Amino acid sequence: MNSFGRFFRVTVFGESHGASVGVNIDGIPAGIPLTQEDFLPDLERRKGGARGTTPRKEEDLPHLKSGVFNDLTTGAPITILFENNNTRSTDYEKLRQFPRPGHADFVASKKFGGFEDYRGGGHFSGRLTLNLVAAGVIAKKILGDAIKVEARITEVGGNPDPEAGLEAAIAAKDSVGGIVECVVTGLPIGLGEPFFDSVESNIAHAAFAIPAIKGIEFGTGFAAAKMKGVEHNDPIVDTTGKTATNHAGGVVGGITNGNPLVVRVAVKPTSSTPKDQQTLNIASGEVETFSVKGRHDLCIALRVPVVLESIVAMVLADFMMLEQRRPRVWQ
Amino acid sequence: MNSFGRFFRVTVFGESHGASVGVNIDGIPAGIPLTQEDFLPDLERRKGGARGTTPRKEEDLPHLKSGVFNDLTTGAPITILFENNNTRSTDYEKLRQFPRPGHADFVASKKFGGFEDYRGGGHFSGRLTLNLVAAGVIAKKILGDAIKVEARITEVGGNPDPEAGLEAAIAAKDSVGGIVECVVTGLPIGLGEPFFDSVESNIAHAAFAIPAIKGIEFGTGFAAAKMKGVEHNDPIVDTTGKTATNHAGGVVGGITNGNPLVVRVAVKPTSSTPKDQQTLNIASGEVETFSVKGRHDLCIALRVPVVLESIVAMVLADFMMLEQRRPRVWQ
Amino acid sequence: MNSFGRFFRVTVFGESHGASVGVNIDGIPAGIPLTQEDFLPDLERRKGGARGTTPRKEEDLPHLKSGVFNDLTTGAPITILFENNNTRSTDYEKLRQFPRPGHADFVASKKFGGFEDYRGGGHFSGRLTLNLVAAGVIAKKILGDAIKVEARITEVGGNPDPEAGLEAAIAAKDSVGGIVECVVTGLPIGLGEPFFDSVESNIAHAAFAIPAIKGIEFGTGFAAAKMKGVEHNDPIVDTTGKTATNHAGGVVGGITNGNPLVVRVAVKPTSSTPKDQQTLNIASGEVETFSVKGRHDLCIALRVPVVLESIVAMVLADFMMLEQRRPRVWQ
Amino acid sequence: MNSFGRFFRVTVFGESHGASVGVNIDGIPAGIPLTQEDFLPDLERRKGGARGTTPRKEEDLPHLKSGVFNDLTTGAPITILFENNNTRSTDYEKLRQFPRPGHADFVASKKFGGFEDYRGGGHFSGRLTLNLVAAGVIAKKILGDAIKVEARITEVGGNPDPEAGLEAAIAAKDSVGGIVECVVTGLPIGLGEPFFDSVESNIAHAAFAIPAIKGIEFGTGFAAAKMKGVEHNDPIVDTTGKTATNHAGGVVGGITNGNPLVVRVAVKPTSSTPKDQQTLNIASGEVETFSVKGRHDLCIALRVPVVLESIVAMVLADFMMLEQRRPRVWQ
Repeated sequence: MNSFGRFFRVTVFGESHGASVGVNIDGIPAGIPLTQEDFLPDLERRKGGARGTTPRKEEDLPHLKSGVFNDLTTGAPITILFENNNTRSTDYEKLRQFPRPGHADFVASKKFGGFEDYRGGGHFSGRLTLNLVAAGVIAKKILGDAIKVEARITEVGGNPDPEAGLEAAIAAKDSVGGIVECVVTGLPIGLGEPFFDSVESNIAHAAFAIPAIKGIEFGTGFAAAKMKGVEHNDPIVDTTGKTATNHAGGVVGGITNGNPLVVRVAVKPTSSTPKDQQTLNIASGEVETFSVKGRHDLCIALRVPVVLESIVAMVLADFMMLEQRRPRVWQ
Repeated sequence: MNSFGRFFRVTVFGESHGASVGVNIDGIPAGIPLTQEDFLPDLERRKGGARGTTPRKEEDLPHLKSGVFNDLTTGAPITILFENNNTRSTDYEKLRQFPRPGHADFVASKKFGGFEDYRGGGHFSGRLTLNLVAAGVIAKKILGDAIKVEARITEVGGNPDPEAGLEAAIAAKDSVGGIVECVVTGLPIGLGEPFFDSVESNIAHAAFAIPAIKGIEFGTGFAAAKMKGVEHNDPIVDTTGKTATNHAGGVVGGITNGNPLVVRVAVKPTSSTPKDQQTLNIASGEVETFSVKGRHDLCIALRVPVVLESIVAMVLADFMMLEQRRPRVWQ
Repeated sequence: MNSFGRFFRVTVFGESHGASVGVNIDGIPAGIPLTQEDFLPDLERRKGGARGTTPRKEEDLPHLKSGVFNDLTTGAPITILFENNNTRSTDYEKLRQFPRPGHADFVASKKFGGFEDYRGGGHFSGRLTLNLVAAGVIAKKILGDAIKVEARITEVGGNPDPEAGLEAAIAAKDSVGGIVECVVTGLPIGLGEPFFDSVESNIAHAAFAIPAIKGIEFGTGFAAAKMKGVEHNDPIVDTTGKTATNHAGGVVGGITNGNPLVVRVAVKPTSSTPKDQQTLNIASGEVETFSVKGRHDLCIALRVPVVLESIVAMVLADFMMLEQRRPRVWQ
Repeated sequence: MNSFGRFFRVTVFGESHGASVGVNIDGIPAGIPLTQEDFLPDLERRKGGARGTTPRKEEDLPHLKSGVFNDLTTGAPITILFENNNTRSTDYEKLRQFPRPGHADFVASKKFGGFEDYRGGGHFSGRLTLNLVAAGVIAKKILGDAIKVEARITEVGGNPDPEAGLEAAIAAKDSVGGIVECVVTGLPIGLGEPFFDSVESNIAHAAFAIPAIKGIEFGTGFAAAKMKGVEHNDPIVDTTGKTATNHAGGVVGGITNGNPLVVRVAVKPTSSTPKDQQTLNIASGEVETFSVKGRHDLCIALRVPVVLESIVAMVLADFMMLEQRRPRVWQ
């Protein structure tokens, strides 16, 4: 469903070309300073406009509709609304007979019987990640200054120089995938819950809500599968739990071990490539050549770092609210 | 927490060397034939005893404690209990001062204040995957014969010939990681729920509950990050949603698209390597050389296929029970 | 928290004198006709203005912010927003030092450390029942025409002639309580879930979210405690489950039995009585005489029927979506 | 479903005449002393054997199957199992054609298609309240000594002298209903969560899981509906929140106000009256005279106090774990 988290409880709604997209966040303590301005830097980071990202620009102003009074959270649920203004829906209407490869058009139509709002991907649109970023801003406040959540793009189209990878894609006039890595420092030992709510479980759950993510790994991740035990094990070197290496990426047994949390996601190439593609014409039943119009990112991975940061912060804030407060040990 | 799923609701409990491990499964329809015998083949697949797996053998007999009457499910919650008989806890007691690298010993002790059942990993033990396999047997019955869930090991220690990879590890007297792939055929279009319950989200969530999993990917996964849009997109070729390629691994927009679901997990090398390791001696505060005793798998990945199948089946059964029955479209 | 329901999943937000109140409803099937007009009759029934109800009038126009496209539900979450326009917050600011007896002022201030939006009761205000009524309109559509949910006031101030009871209160210049009864006909046999989600459990849970409710009973309810078994038992008279009497109020073992569901709630007198009251002056620490200003209902029970109908419809819609669709019996 | 609570998470299972009944409790902190003996006093209070209660006696020994190590909780889920030994199922088999009035027989058969375990009420049996009592023992430990939860029967068959009420029923050879009241002292201000998790909502939810409960009220409850505002309002008399009267029963706005919590439930007469009854013969389709055999309580209300205490303690423990630990106010 459209909710996630237990303490830091996020519910998202909206469609790309509908009236609005928005998010409700329940469980937030009272007394946290919160204004519209607080959201702008991260929203700006997410915004299109740079090379390789969509030229569509919304003002993306977050409207605080509940849960804030005198610029402080009240303890009641916070609702943040983004109105949709700058939409060009006519781009999409004629496309309905061509379900775009890689997009949710075909499955959405099957699942919702054609009643889905198909314009711009509707509820499946990447525009809903605005909600995640807004929630992430609050999550980061809960984590506080001592915990730093920082993501960056580490690879575009297989190139560890993302700039060069992007240039290659622009030259090829095709969209391209990438890798985004998020590192969190300053975490306490003990976040994560057996059996089903490991740190990896909950971060992965939320990360796969970001459109275009097709893989996730922690620490050495897939490379660990090629390693021997003695190579991979991280020797504990002191009573704070510090390890000599960090192949585990800061999580052992699903629980944070006090070392930096390291998570990496694979972002597929933007499905809306400018190149011609083959797809089914629903009307004719024939496979035809087809070209996506509209405004799209060439490398959606470029916009993922702030979104990945946000979901990692959301999940960690949820665990922090549980772990720091609930008596895990009885006194 | 220790529960997962909405309709196919699984709750696990138990410790490796405690009285028992077990599982409660709520939401199962009435009238499904179910006997102890039904569990034995998959439990056998999970069991140790082959080369590279632990010599510890439990009878692993599933005791049906509730929810079954006259060899048929009743619609009430099903409880399956595995008694622990063949435990050698003394192996573990002296190890407490050496938190084993790669294991949850250190974080569990910090999180639960030393009150955790530390014997054999306690609640963090791989023995709890018995519960997943038991749940998976029921999940597979719900999926029915037309949907096939099949996992196999595709790589050991980086070697696509798993047998050779294992031999190399035995020769090196070290543990080793591996890759396990699960393919599901026969799925309908439309499983998965926006925004936070994508097929990938829920499978990843459950998969990271399996000890030793450090990465997961769908379809081409991490390789997609290196691809161009035209290469990666899967052209739809007919009205059943069949695609010419299956880079998406059967999931688009978080929803099954009718093509085979393909998921791959990275399994780290067994933390209990027979080799000497360095770790902290909690008592002395010094890093010392240390060697894990006890009975352990050299390549835990060898036992993962049936567990991965089980959790994939669990998640899909949950979605099937939602999708096939709830009116997604109003009539 | 501020969410309720599993399939018909309602999340409420907002404050009486904040920017808005609103509701998010997740899980609604696609293809249900839904327009702003559909909400107006029930919102009108809830509105103040009649004798004995508050003279505050909001336009109470429901703004559909997501989940509806071309006047049909899309299957995505529906958000309905009510802007707050007609507020007179200055009435409340000076009252802060006098926590109003019977209101949440004192406990809210303790719980949320003074950061709560105290104006007009803030998030505790009866104004949030707008959200319930809006959700109820959709719930009634899901129940369909064959299931009728009808509530009415049966007693005001102990008088089974509500009109007379109200006149007595007006004459006494005091607020007054009442009883509201809701009857549902046309229900199938089998709604309700063992062990914790009985029909009574879930209706009671939601009903006690309505401010001022202090008791709830089903069928003969409290009177049953005075009865003998032979008197109280309802003999089943035919294979449709029809019973000769309906002391059970249509629910046996927590499950609907095909007879009319009968539920009754006790509504306390409006806490904001026009009469002088004694309460603590937080500033002076003394008990002082105090008089509530602002616009208030003399008998809030008069506005409860449509709200009770709404929550009963919500709970039953949730059960219907589960029961009719999930395979309770395997085929 | 068969689970309840967020922190103090209870899952019940089992059937009256199946292999066992049991309960899993997740979320319990580590380090709480817990032995089999701790459960015996409350289990004894629940047990049949006194006048007016069933002569069936089980040993009712709680077997701790997980989550306890060295007589201390470990932080992992606790499973408590009660084996069923003393069952006389043949009493029930021949009754299937006569669905017992007031029992779940008819609705269970319709809901679960005849696959339900019908023996002794199966999963609907009052025997499952053993699980609630076991969970309550742990909940009371979490509440600690300063919070006292005490329930007693206040009325049998309408007689405020329960002994006399019971004698009357014995003389009449009929079963009889009653009222049970639970009072909790020592509670902090601030338990309960807007909007849907008021103290009343959650207690009522759990209370209606107890078989035979048909009504619940807080404080003056239904009597409040007959009162005027000035009569009903409880003046706050000091800064601890103490009120001059306690018509609210310790809960205002759904939140505890520091005064004693008072809750009362109506218990219907035991459906299995020794008197002859009329019911449908499913086989013949005719209404016939019928008499319940088996061992039954004449006044089930006599066994409710310890069960009501248990569920009240469960709900309050859940709130305490949330409220005392989660930062409701940011520092």
